Formats: sequence, C-alpha cells, structure tokens
Amino acid sequence: MTADHIKGVAAAPGLAIGQAVRWRKDRPKVEKRQVDDADQEVLRLEKIVDRAKEQLTRLRETTRERMGDDEAGIFDAHLSFLDDPAYIGEIKNRIRDKKENAEAISEEVTEEMASMLASLPDEYMQARADDIRDVGNRILLLLSGIEPFDPSLLQSGSIVIADDLAPSDTAQFPPGVAAMVTSRGSKTAHAAIMARTLGIPAVLGIGDNLDQIQEDDTLIVDGDEGNVTINPDADSQQKARAEMERQQELRRAALEKAGSDAVTADGKRIQVFANIGRPADLETALQNGAEGIGLFRTEFLYLENDHWPTEEEQADAYAKVLKAFEGKPVVIRTLDIGGDKDLPYADLPTEENPFLGHRAIRFCLSNPEIFKTQLRALLRAGVHGDLWIMFPMVENVSEIREAKSLLEEARSELEKEGHAVAQQPKVGIMIEVPAAAVTADVLAKEVDFMSIGTNDLTQYTLAADRGNERVAPLYDAAHPAVLRLVRQTCDAARQEGIITGMCGELAGDPKMTEVLVGLGLDELSMSAGTIPEVKENVRRIETAPARTLADEALTKSDPVEIRSLSGK
Amino acid sequence: MTADHIKGVAAAPGLAIGQAVRWRKDRPKVEKRQVDDADQEVLRLEKIVDRAKEQLTRLRETTRERMGDDEAGIFDAHLSFLDDPAYIGEIKNRIRDKKENAEAISEEVTEEMASMLASLPDEYMQARADDIRDVGNRILLLLSGIEPFDPSLLQSGSIVIADDLAPSDTAQFPPGVAAMVTSRGSKTAHAAIMARTLGIPAVLGIGDNLDQIQEDDTLIVDGDEGNVTINPDADSQQKARAEMERQQELRRAALEKAGSDAVTADGKRIQVFANIGRPADLETALQNGAEGIGLFRTEFLYLENDHWPTEEEQADAYAKVLKAFEGKPVVIRTLDIGGDKDLPYADLPTEENPFLGHRAIRFCLSNPEIFKTQLRALLRAGVHGDLWIMFPMVENVSEIREAKSLLEEARSELEKEGHAVAQQPKVGIMIEVPAAAVTADVLAKEVDFMSIGTNDLTQYTLAADRGNERVAPLYDAAHPAVLRLVRQTCDAARQEGIITGMCGELAGDPKMTEVLVGLGLDELSMSAGTIPEVKENVRRIETAPARTLADEALTKSDPVEIRSLSGK
Repeated sequence: MTADHIKGVAAAPGLAIGQAVRWRKDRPKVEKRQVDDADQEVLRLEKIVDRAKEQLTRLRETTRERMGDDEAGIFDAHLSFLDDPAYIGEIKNRIRDKKENAEAISEEVTEEMASMLASLPDEYMQARADDIRDVGNRILLLLSGIEPFDPSLLQSGSIVIADDLAPSDTAQFPPGVAAMVTSRGSKTAHAAIMARTLGIPAVLGIGDNLDQIQEDDTLIVDGDEGNVTINPDADSQQKARAEMERQQELRRAALEKAGSDAVTADGKRIQVFANIGRPADLETALQNGAEGIGLFRTEFLYLENDHWPTEEEQADAYAKVLKAFEGKPVVIRTLDIGGDKDLPYADLPTEENPFLGHRAIRFCLSNPEIFKTQLRALLRAGVHGDLWIMFPMVENVSEIREAKSLLEEARSELEKEGHAVAQQPKVGIMIEVPAAAVTADVLAKEVDFMSIGTNDLTQYTLAADRGNERVAPLYDAAHPAVLRLVRQTCDAARQEGIITGMCGELAGDPKMTEVLVGLGLDELSMSAGTIPEVKENVRRIETAPARTLADEALTKSDPVEIRSLSGK
Repeated sequence: MTADHIKGVAAAPGLAIGQAVRWRKDRPKVEKRQVDDADQEVLRLEKIVDRAKEQLTRLRETTRERMGDDEAGIFDAHLSFLDDPAYIGEIKNRIRDKKENAEAISEEVTEEMASMLASLPDEYMQARADDIRDVGNRILLLLSGIEPFDPSLLQSGSIVIADDLAPSDTAQFPPGVAAMVTSRGSKTAHAAIMARTLGIPAVLGIGDNLDQIQEDDTLIVDGDEGNVTINPDADSQQKARAEMERQQELRRAALEKAGSDAVTADGKRIQVFANIGRPADLETALQNGAEGIGLFRTEFLYLENDHWPTEEEQADAYAKVLKAFEGKPVVIRTLDIGGDKDLPYADLPTEENPFLGHRAIRFCLSNPEIFKTQLRALLRAGVHGDLWIMFPMVENVSEIREAKSLLEEARSELEKEGHAVAQQPKVGIMIEVPAAAVTADVLAKEVDFMSIGTNDLTQYTLAADRGNERVAPLYDAAHPAVLRLVRQTCDAARQEGIITGMCGELAGDPKMTEVLVGLGLDELSMSAGTIPEVKENVRRIETAPARTLADEALTKSDPVEIRSLSGK
C-alpha cells in the first residue's frame, strides 16, 4: 500500500471529499500537589463544575435544535454526572481527605470510575465510560484554563480527523462536516454509530496511519470500502464527485418514498422495521418509514435506574411504543444482561468471558421473579398494540418451554388479579447463538417467529469479540459461515410457516439487501436512518436473481468476495 | 428430588459404592500483627519453607512410585514456587518492609499471585493458581503448627468428599479410593481430569448439597450420570455392585486388547490416538495402545519457560515425541495462546473476552517471527517421524494460505541453511470455530486433514464458556448443534478425500463412540486412559446402525436425549 492510500474499518457508508481538520483534544498535564486549604479547593472545584454545567446546558440546547432529542441526550448524561454524589461528591470528599489539588483528584476519581465502566463489555456501559472521561476532561480543561477545541473552525466540507471522537465531540459537529477518520474505533464504536446517525461516511481504526494525514490535506473518504486517499489527483477527485452526486440523488429519491411499502420488483413484500433502544427513538423511526419495531431493547429500563424497574414503569414504557405504532408489529426483546453489566442495585458476579456467560435468557430463567415482572409488564402493555415478545440467546428447546411457561404463569396471575392482558402476543426467539441457527428446524416448531441477531451470531460464529479492536478485521457479518446460518434459519422457518427477521447491523447494510432477500428473510430491522435506502433497494430487487446471488455468496470463502459480489 | 439423591456434574465415568470420608482442609485463621524483629521473622519463614520442601519432596517420591512421573510433577511445580524469588522472595521483602508477621504476609502475597493467575482462563494457568494457593496453605499450616489431613485415614473403598480438591490432594490418594464428590468444580476442573486419570468415578459441582452427606454415610456414586445416592437401601446396593462387576470385566477385557487395532464389526478401521500436553505423557499413551498422537499441545514450551522457546528447544521436544511413535502419525498443534495467558517474558494485552480474542493462529499470524521459529522447529523435527502440523482456531481460507506460506518460507530458509527438513508433513486445521465447521467444504480444499476440537467448538457454538460454572449446565458437547457441525465437517472432508479426526473431550467419551463413528469420524484422539475402552467400543460397532443412530441424534433437541440414545 502506498503512502497516500490508507485502509481502515468501513464504519459508516458513503463517499466524501474535503479538507482534513484535526479535532484537537487537549488533555492538560496534571501535577499532584498538596493544598493548604482543602475547603478553598473544594469551592474552586464547585465553581468549575457550575461553569461546566453552563457549557453543557448550552451544548445540549444547540444540539437539540440542530440534531434532535437523542443526540442532545448525550449532554443530559454528562450533566447527570455533574450532579452525581458518587462522582463530584467523591472528588470533594477526597480533596478534603487527601488535601490534594482538584486537578489531581478529579483525574484520579474520573479514571477509577471510567476504568470500572470500561471493563464492562456492554456498549451502553462503555459509552458511559467515554462519557465520564469526557466530563472529567472538561473539568480539567476548565480547572487549567485551557480553551476546548472550537468546532466553528470546521467549515462545510471539513473532514474531521482524530485519534478518537467522543459522543460530545460528534454532537458538536456543525452541519456540513463531510466525513470522519479516526485512528481508533471499530464498526461498533460510538463514533461509527454517530456517523451513521449523521449520515456521513466514516473510516475508523486506521491506527498510526493517521499521522500521514496533515492538516488541510485533501481527502477522499470511502466509507463503504474503508479507504482514505490523501491528496488525490484531479481525475480521482472528479470521479469521486460524480459518484457522490449519484449517491445523493439516490438518497433523495429513497427518502421521498420512505413511507411506502418495500416490495420487490416481482411482488414480494419485505417488512422494513426499526431497532430502538428507548421510547425516545420512536419519532425518528416513524419519520423514516419504519413499518414496525423489529427490536426494542429493554435494557435502558434496567441500566438507567437505581432499582429493578417495576411492572408499572415497564408497562408504561412498552405501552408508549405499542401505542405509537398503532397496531403495527412491535418486537420487544426481554432483558439481555449478564455478568458484564454493573447494575448499582444488583450484585452480578463478574465473568472471565461475559459474552459466553450467564446472561440474557439464562439470567432470566435463573431469576424468575425479575423475569416475571417483565413478562407481566409486557402482557399488560400488549393490550395497546401488536406485541411480539422475543427471548434473547436461546440455544435449546427447554429454554423456550420454560420461558413460555413463565409467560403463561404471568398471564394467569394477571387475569386472576383482574388486569386486561394481551390475548395473542406472538412469541419468538433471537437466533444469535450458533447452536440456535444450526438447530433452527427444531426450535422453529416452538415459536411464532425468529429474528436473527447478526451482531452476536457473528461474534460467536467467528469467535471474535465485536468490542475487541484486535480482532476487528475478522469480525464481519458478511462471512459466508454467518450467511449460511442465516439461510439455514430462513429455510427452517419457511418449513414451519413462520417468518424470519433480522435485527443485527447486517440488516441495515444497503450493500447486502439483495443477498439478504435472496437468503429468504421476510423482515429486516435496522437503525432508522438506513430504512429509506434499504426500502428503495428492495424495490429494485427481483427475488429469483437475488436467490442466485445469495447462493453464489454461500460458496465464497471470505466476506470481501461477498461484499464485492453484491456491489455488482 | 428427594434428600438422598443428589445431582451434580458427571465428571469422570464409572460406578462406585463406599463410605464417605471428608477430606478436611484446614485453613488457619490468620491475624495480622506487627513484629519487632523482621529479620527474625524472615528466619522463621525460611525454616518453614525448608520443612515444606521436605514434605513436598517426600510426597513427590511416594507419588512417583505409586502413580508415575506425571502426577509427581505436581509437586515439582510446588517445589519450584518455593524457590521462586517472585514468591518467597516477595514474602521476605514484604515482611521486612511492613514489619508484619509471616502468616499475614504469606497469605497476602499468595492471594495476590493466585488471583492474578486465576484471572487467566487457561487451564494450565488456573492449575497454577490452585498450585500456589495449595503451597501457600501448606506454609500457613506449618507456620501455625497445624497437622494437615492424613490421607492414610482413607481406607480402601473410601469415597472422598470435599469442597474442592487440589492437585496435591488427589496425588496423595492411596490406592483404593473409590470415588470423589465435590461441591465445586466442573467437567474441566482439575479434580475431574485427575479422577479420569486415576480411573475413579467423580461427581463434581454438587454445591451446598455436600452438606447432606455425613461422614461414613454409604454412597453410590454414578460418574456417568452425575448422581450420588446417600445411604441407599440393600437392593440398590446390590444392583450397583452387580453393575460395577460387569463394568470391571469390560475394562479388563479392553485393556488386554489395547494394543490391537480398533476395527468395527463390519471392518472399518478407526484410528485411536492420544492427546498429550508434554513429552512426559508419551509413555502412558503408548501403554494404553495409542496408535498415534492426535493432539500434541505445544503450549507447555511457552508457559513453562522464561523466554520464547528457541528453535532448538522446540525441535528437541517435537523430535522426542516423533521418535517415540516410530513413524506413526503425530499431530502437533501450533501455538495456541492469547490475551488470557500471562507469559512472564511477553506483554500480551488483556482482553474482555479472551476466548473471543486475539489468540492461536490470529496471534501467530500477527507475530510471524515467533510463529516461524515454531514452524522451523517442526520442519526440522519432522525428519524423525510422521509429522502432521495443525493450525488452531482457523476460520477462513486466508489464514490457512498465510500460515502455509510462512511454512514454505521456513522450509526454504532451512534448506538454504543446509538443514534436513521434513519433506511431506501433512498440514491441517483444527475445526473449533463454528465458522470453520459451517464452511468446512471450503476449508477442506486447502488442507490435508481436519481435526475437530470439541471443547472450543462447543463453547462457541453454545456461547458457553467452559470454565464458567454458572453456564456449566449448558456446556455439553453432545448438543445436537455440535453434532450437526461434526457431521457437516466429516461430510466435507470425505468429499475432498481427506480424513477428519476429533481431539476434544467428546472423542474420549465411551458413551458417544457409536454416535461419533456414525457421524463419520476416521480418527478419535483422547486422554490415554480411555483409549482401551473406546477401542473396544469401536470393535462392537457396525457402521450402518451407527449411522442410523447418529442420524437420529441429529434430530434431537437436547444432549440428554442424545446421551440416553447412545446408552441403549
């Protein structure tokens, strides 16, 4: 590879051309020193915390205006840290105890909390580790009197380059940022998710190659292939611009038709649903033409609370989503936590390999009271719409039967208590453990639907932790083994007359739509932003050639060949 | 379940009847106190360390006489800790620094080192954590003047019950111990491995139910089913004794014929090989009729050294095994380490989910110098016998091609340097990542043989860490999904005209021999002790009914049904 072509992780699709601007992240050098008057030092900290709150409140408002509630929520999280006695309170106490300066103590407490959070491989908790480091850095900058990077330096067409980008960084992107390139990060990094939300191309994980890019270099960023070209010649630039225009035109057309059904050219309807993580995500899903919710993750109720969420709290949240979708399918996944989560109100043992541990349905079946509270809440909320209940991480028939029997128990209890309950909620399972895909024919007999969770299915099938950057090059859902398991699952479902959906990242990869339809999926669920494009893709597809394409993909030996196949 | 039947993990097969004897493990209560004369305290420790060495040397000799070199080796490991400056040296330094008593400091340092080791999910390293705790406890007992449990209390027919059993405990078992039952431990625990080596039944992981067993209770221990019956009635006892005699007769017959080939009743030869962890295991393998080595793990060279093992050191070890097997196949697996290992001479980053991390072939391909040293050693040793080189954790074609090209590079280097090298070593892969099994047809075209590693294949396919006791009930290689992947692999291999072996625990499970033959395996490799029985099983099998049985197993929904099938 020559110096002017860099390869990284294709983290958010699209093509961009623009000027490199380094997102400068100062990290003040902190020296520990004793202070004579600890109370005075605490006061100094308190003033800084107030200024940090002002900054964050302002950022929240401008973000809300420009990007919406979800993105603004990042700053709510930051603000809540500034009110958290376990954080700011601990810093103050420790300043008094150790009589050391606020900079040193803030850094120490921040790093302790962040390491603790970062050791938990759940993406929500890791995001929180990033959040607290981000807040800690803001406090340090303010304490040290350093001005943070000024995002107004980013002119339209700028390509942000950085070691890494925090949620609060990307939220400050002014409109017109063309792309992002970072040395750290993988497909599942926060920066990747954010880039996809913003709809800008991103190439992450380029490592030390970042140093080859100089400020103001012209870059072509190809977020589909993971390529960055430094100072391309005029011809390459022209080609890139033409391709960008073509893509933009396609996007415009897709968004116009987002509200219509996705039906293949030869008449097969593919349901295109949205994945959501909290009720607040509903609006974007509806705007982008989601025909239902294919995955409603319920972990936020557990992770953002200081107690096991009550039946009422849960029923309210579920009802909100069911009502908003007015009788369209809403697939709610039951609790998926395990030893990698740190719930302040529960003592979950840590595990050596939490992704291979006691989590999801395993945890729920061992904790029937916690599980039944959720099942009761689901059944009660189910009267407000078309409820589909989905159990995660199932790998054998007994688990399904046990879960269904608890569901029946919950129903009869509720009925005895005089509650209205959902009469016919569909009951299904995630196909994400390889064993479930391999024995899908056996499991399909027990359920009303199956939904393939490609993120976990990929990491188990390839034995590659999707949070581990060292194996990031191996982690690719388009691996032929994963696609074969998808085909096997679809075939098993068709045999039993039930539908198969897909709710992992792969479902929202527009390059893979034809292959996925060809594999036999009936429903695709994805981040709201990609719905219009995927729907439009479906409309261009004919099922017979799609099947031939998928058949061909299954004979390939690696993901790269498959992606290039479907790019034809 | 009534109080007199206890269910646990079936950890070592066989049936036994006998009297419960609790293996008392005192752990002196340690109180921290300041000492005036730290040098005096260090002297006191030194004397105790000398006494511990005497005890251990004696234990080593009696163990060597009674059980052989391998078992005696446990005490070598203990003795080496007593000479380790990082351990005893650290205790002495800390006594001097903190001026605290030897008991408190020993306990502190032991626990630090043990926790560090125990956090590494490799079975060798975990065994070392157990070892150091064991040594630490010996020191504490001696410092406190408490006599350790006297194994001569165990009369013939005793059934040892304990919370857990350390390597040094089981090594002290006098002949005639009938079985063991522990509250902790899983199929892969040290105690389980030891029980299988000793050939006595073991039921582990019975948890708090251990408290239901009183000293001198009569127990029936069924190590095949994982059942313990407390104080059975006369009728049950009689039945158990009759069954024991029948089993003993079978074992005797099997051992007599261990040296002969294993050929099914209708004439299909199944090769029965041994798994070994170090050259010292050779003798037992040969005695039990191993027709080759199906898995020679090379990690001992890396884990038991203070430097990356040199080409010479490795070539010597490999040659030893190749020579001992005089032209019979010796499958040597290339290095399988990763972020879960703590090599004193290498800085491997820790990972959140090391089993899903940067290990085995992934590590080797990223560290070509280390890998090539091993490949060179293999090629040089290969002139002494029938060398089969096996790459672990392969999941795609590129990995195989890259590894093979490094092998060719090594060969041409060696030839240029004038070394004799193996001309036609077979090159194969472990099938242990689900993706490899699912795409075995693609991978089979690139190699000379495939060997299914059921331990890893099971843990990935079922997403259940085999070292995690909380998911132990899920971890079962006889899961239909695993067996389907085995069948798929065998079919793919036959298509390409190459052979498929199996070198995981499943291969040595005598109850599964018929199913495995029916699935299409050509070679089974296992712990030496089970070879005679498995060979004898093969001789009783006819391939057509075995295939029917296997076909039936593949339709089942859980391992229990499959095991009962093949028990018919």
